[in-house]
Amino acid sequence: MLNAGQFLQHASIRDPFWARIREVVRKEGIPYQWRALNDQIPDAEPSYCMRNFRIAAGQEQGAHAGYVFQDSDVAKWLEGAAYTLRWHPDAELEATVDGAIEQIVAAQQPDGYLDTYYIINGLDKRWTNLKDNHELYCAGHMIEAAVAYYHVTGKRVLLDAMIRYVDYIDSVLGPEEGKLHGYPGHPVIEMALMRLYDITKDPKHLKLAKYFVDQRGQAPLYFKEEDERNHNPFYWKDSYFQYQYYQAGKPVREQADAEGHSVRAMYLYSGMADVARETGDESLAEACRRLWDSTVRRRMYVTGAVGSSEYGEAFTFDYDLPNDTIYGETCAAIGLVFFARRMLSLEAKGEYADVMERALYNGVISGMQLDGRKFFYVNPLEVLPEASYKDHGKRHVKPERQKWFGCACCPPNIIRLVSSIEDYVYSVENDNIFVHLYVGGDLQTQVGGTPVKLNVETEYPWKDDIKLTVDVAQSASFALRLRIPGWCRAYTVKCNGEIVQTTAQEGYISLDGVWNAGDTVELSLDMPVMLVRANPRVYEDAGKVAVMRGPLVYCLEEADNSRNLHLVSLGDAQSADFEPQWKPDKLGGIVELHSPGVRETDAGWESALYSPDTPLQSEPVSLTWIPYYAWANRALGEMRVWVRR
Amino acid sequence: MLNAGQFLQHASIRDPFWARIREVVRKEGIPYQWRALNDQIPDAEPSYCMRNFRIAAGQEQGAHAGYVFQDSDVAKWLEGAAYTLRWHPDAELEATVDGAIEQIVAAQQPDGYLDTYYIINGLDKRWTNLKDNHELYCAGHMIEAAVAYYHVTGKRVLLDAMIRYVDYIDSVLGPEEGKLHGYPGHPVIEMALMRLYDITKDPKHLKLAKYFVDQRGQAPLYFKEEDERNHNPFYWKDSYFQYQYYQAGKPVREQADAEGHSVRAMYLYSGMADVARETGDESLAEACRRLWDSTVRRRMYVTGAVGSSEYGEAFTFDYDLPNDTIYGETCAAIGLVFFARRMLSLEAKGEYADVMERALYNGVISGMQLDGRKFFYVNPLEVLPEASYKDHGKRHVKPERQKWFGCACCPPNIIRLVSSIEDYVYSVENDNIFVHLYVGGDLQTQVGGTPVKLNVETEYPWKDDIKLTVDVAQSASFALRLRIPGWCRAYTVKCNGEIVQTTAQEGYISLDGVWNAGDTVELSLDMPVMLVRANPRVYEDAGKVAVMRGPLVYCLEEADNSRNLHLVSLGDAQSADFEPQWKPDKLGGIVELHSPGVRETDAGWESALYSPDTPLQSEPVSLTWIPYYAWANRALGEMRVWVRR
Repeated sequence: MLNAGQFLQHASIRDPFWARIREVVRKEGIPYQWRALNDQIPDAEPSYCMRNFRIAAGQEQGAHAGYVFQDSDVAKWLEGAAYTLRWHPDAELEATVDGAIEQIVAAQQPDGYLDTYYIINGLDKRWTNLKDNHELYCAGHMIEAAVAYYHVTGKRVLLDAMIRYVDYIDSVLGPEEGKLHGYPGHPVIEMALMRLYDITKDPKHLKLAKYFVDQRGQAPLYFKEEDERNHNPFYWKDSYFQYQYYQAGKPVREQADAEGHSVRAMYLYSGMADVARETGDESLAEACRRLWDSTVRRRMYVTGAVGSSEYGEAFTFDYDLPNDTIYGETCAAIGLVFFARRMLSLEAKGEYADVMERALYNGVISGMQLDGRKFFYVNPLEVLPEASYKDHGKRHVKPERQKWFGCACCPPNIIRLVSSIEDYVYSVENDNIFVHLYVGGDLQTQVGGTPVKLNVETEYPWKDDIKLTVDVAQSASFALRLRIPGWCRAYTVKCNGEIVQTTAQEGYISLDGVWNAGDTVELSLDMPVMLVRANPRVYEDAGKVAVMRGPLVYCLEEADNSRNLHLVSLGDAQSADFEPQWKPDKLGGIVELHSPGVRETDAGWESALYSPDTPLQSEPVSLTWIPYYAWANRALGEMRVWVRR
Repeated sequence: MLNAGQFLQHASIRDPFWARIREVVRKEGIPYQWRALNDQIPDAEPSYCMRNFRIAAGQEQGAHAGYVFQDSDVAKWLEGAAYTLRWHPDAELEATVDGAIEQIVAAQQPDGYLDTYYIINGLDKRWTNLKDNHELYCAGHMIEAAVAYYHVTGKRVLLDAMIRYVDYIDSVLGPEEGKLHGYPGHPVIEMALMRLYDITKDPKHLKLAKYFVDQRGQAPLYFKEEDERNHNPFYWKDSYFQYQYYQAGKPVREQADAEGHSVRAMYLYSGMADVARETGDESLAEACRRLWDSTVRRRMYVTGAVGSSEYGEAFTFDYDLPNDTIYGETCAAIGLVFFARRMLSLEAKGEYADVMERALYNGVISGMQLDGRKFFYVNPLEVLPEASYKDHGKRHVKPERQKWFGCACCPPNIIRLVSSIEDYVYSVENDNIFVHLYVGGDLQTQVGGTPVKLNVETEYPWKDDIKLTVDVAQSASFALRLRIPGWCRAYTVKCNGEIVQTTAQEGYISLDGVWNAGDTVELSLDMPVMLVRANPRVYEDAGKVAVMRGPLVYCLEEADNSRNLHLVSLGDAQSADFEPQWKPDKLGGIVELHSPGVRETDAGWESALYSPDTPLQSEPVSLTWIPYYAWANRALGEMRVWVRR
């Protein structure tokens, strides 16, 4: 098993692909979102987030505003800011963070409670609606922020405040008589408590996380009893998923399908994987594997997006993956990365890293405009702007990213993930160093007490060469375990310039031996363009293919290929007919693909809507493909991932 | 111009196809719906319709129940019942109708007003919400019932009551000072007043119909002023169509696109065509033609269904014709038949009859179960039962017909149309007898003062032969103008056994001359199976074909072809490979089609969701096609019209 400390590797990122995004996050995202949290963005919906803390601290008069979970926005921002400080120390930002923490902690109640919604609206009402009112969700995010900031700076103000809050939560909720037998309507605190436990090693923290996982969905159903006791509304009466919206329709070990609200699902499964890893609970690990399979083998888009339906922001059913009415919330793809990373800690299988990579390079970063200033909540695979405007069933599918959201969960979530990407790249288990993702930079770790530095040079995902250089003060014996991506059909490995014959097992090759300073490994992952088909059961993609190169999903955009993209098909084009071309000045620098294709014309169809004999005319065209994540960064227009074969 | 009297031809129907449906309507539909109107159907939502009339008449205590337009249900039923009495005299039914009319008229107010919602809830509130509260809609349907019953029986009780009501309406609404300058939120009274005018020739009736058409959408907008004056809600604030929901966003002569609620649109355009015909108003006729083109050339399904979106039960935009989230309300297809019939009266072009036939044989009669006991509101072209249950965006798409609806507009609407089908078959204009549809039976009419009887024998749409026999007491000179359907690519015509060379003009061949008793015309319309494509702009149908034979659209059903119909494609099958087979005992008697096809398998895809190299395997299959209208009459299952080529 890997230890939980994996999430704060000493690693640095020097990678053309991620450095660009991380600089945008640091220079634009962090200051922009801090202004947003303080209601300083013109023409955007105000957040009210920091204002709520001032009111809760008695420093300002007013009512709580924004969502019941508004506190979590600053928590996610804090966590993201903490991560950026790890790789880009910044005294001014650190001072801002310290100030924010001071503001937050000022609102904490004598008993440890800290949730502005109930502090402002009346503490007598707290814990009356665990199902919908997000108290434990806000607590969870604040714990994650506290853990991150402590790890990076060693500062304990927020950490100590959150330990006090957890003590209080533990006194209210739990299996013991006299406590409420509740658990969060929106998971996240499970993961957070496991991170806290990794620092504190306080058994109470592990026990509470395990309790939240184990108690969920047990009969009699807490949420039902709570609704009756407190006359809470139940919003999903007419739904087919009922309490599975909250993944609480049955105990987690009995859940076989990814159901309900997709972000909640991903966060819950992540917490389950954490608890399973720490406790060695095989029945829980088995449930994680089952829910993983359900998610990634039957309910995930090719971009790593999950959540097929806007109603309930939810999963629907196996192989139901509509491209144009998709929900595919950015936060859900981020949650899938969390889940994948934790499954990888549970058992180092390339399958988990494959999905992690798929989501990261596609459905996660598609959520942010290249300049870091606008965001998608929904990440469609097919967009017709007129349909978003005139078909009510597609109104949630925006053809342009938005500045900010009243419910601003996604923007700070991208920031905290992107700014901590190093935590997803490596892991170290006993005398194994795993490289899960190919990102340029350095890892500094210890293997068997020996300090090891690993340098990675690559222009992945644009180029297929990765060079790893070992730096050790003295010879060290360890296994370098390098992932061979699931998409990769051919690769070569050289150690110190000599080709090594090796076969990947469970998705990793293992280079085992004694390493000396300056030893190099050169990995070349063949990266031809691939024409990918969906499982035939995916009815929305029948007869279509998606274009991928390496981990990147490509798309057609109106800006390059003009309108009516549905008229385009690939005809006889084979993957070998695709020509990659490096475009340093386009969309932040991309490998663009060019391919032949066929475009139907509507010649002869001027007035007919249906005809048995109007010939279908088509003409050869040259198609230009861009990486999916970069779409909607030019003029408003159509976009399409799945194209007819 | 054809006179409006066309709608009550002396014609009889002896036609295997329609006789079956009409007998179901007469024996099942009429008595069933009368019981429904009287709340006597177990397990179905009660109607409250007749109860409201008893309460309004002071014969029973209680509150108004059901929709604000509940009165219209009995009006449509009365109209349908009247039509059945025309071709199947039935003293018991006539007594029931007389009783219903007595009940209805008992609620009429001294000033002529007759709407149970306002009679029960307070007459002071009447005319305060023309936009949404359907007073003129209910009046319109009751006028249509009165006209039909008067035509069939000569009885004037309801007719006179409605004339009094119209006098009262005319005293309240109109262009004159002191009157409200309003018009109906839901059109139908325009058509109704034109039918009334056809009997009364009272200029007031024409004038009022014309006023409703002309005033609609004029600035300042009546509905806006009414909302402000009476604090009415406006439900479509967030819609893109705004007041075009009611086709009232601009004057009707400025409307170029079929927009808003599709039933309202069809009824309005029908009324416009009536007024244009009667008044010779070319600008209004031109508006009708424009809206016709918008509807049938860019916004109509291959089945004649219209209304692409459940939100607002509305049109969306050009070529937006999703098959699985369609609305396609039965009433809207019926409305399209009304519109087509009236355009045909305005100008005898085959195009109008083609659409009328398309809707009648497909999207209208699909609304009723073969046994006449269950009904569709929504008529999809693609159904996956699990999606209707688990994808909220498809919850309106029912995979099974329902017994009755709280909003029961569709069931009696089918009945009144099917029971008056003869009115759509023929028209007589000067010395021309038009045959628009091929339905077995007799027409009795007069041409230039000479009585002419025309007998039609056919098994259309199953067989391609139609035999017409003229019966005249003395030689008569007239033109028999027979429609060559738009779908027909080859035909032969014989007069008295001799082949006649003739070319269709505007969709009709003209057989002009002196006719004697016993003269025959044999028309043979080649009816091969056709593989129909949609205009390439229809993105939902790209790469797909629909199968038609004659006027009938065919579909694949799970009951014949097993599940996962999206895996089926036609492969290389040509129309000549389709084999029609008469199945007298299947689905009420149908011509079934058999064709080769290809079915992809998911062999090798057990665990992969996306793959670049898992081969797509397929196997040849034999496909069974049934007429679209007959779907969902067996076990619950999938259905699909558009199939990959």
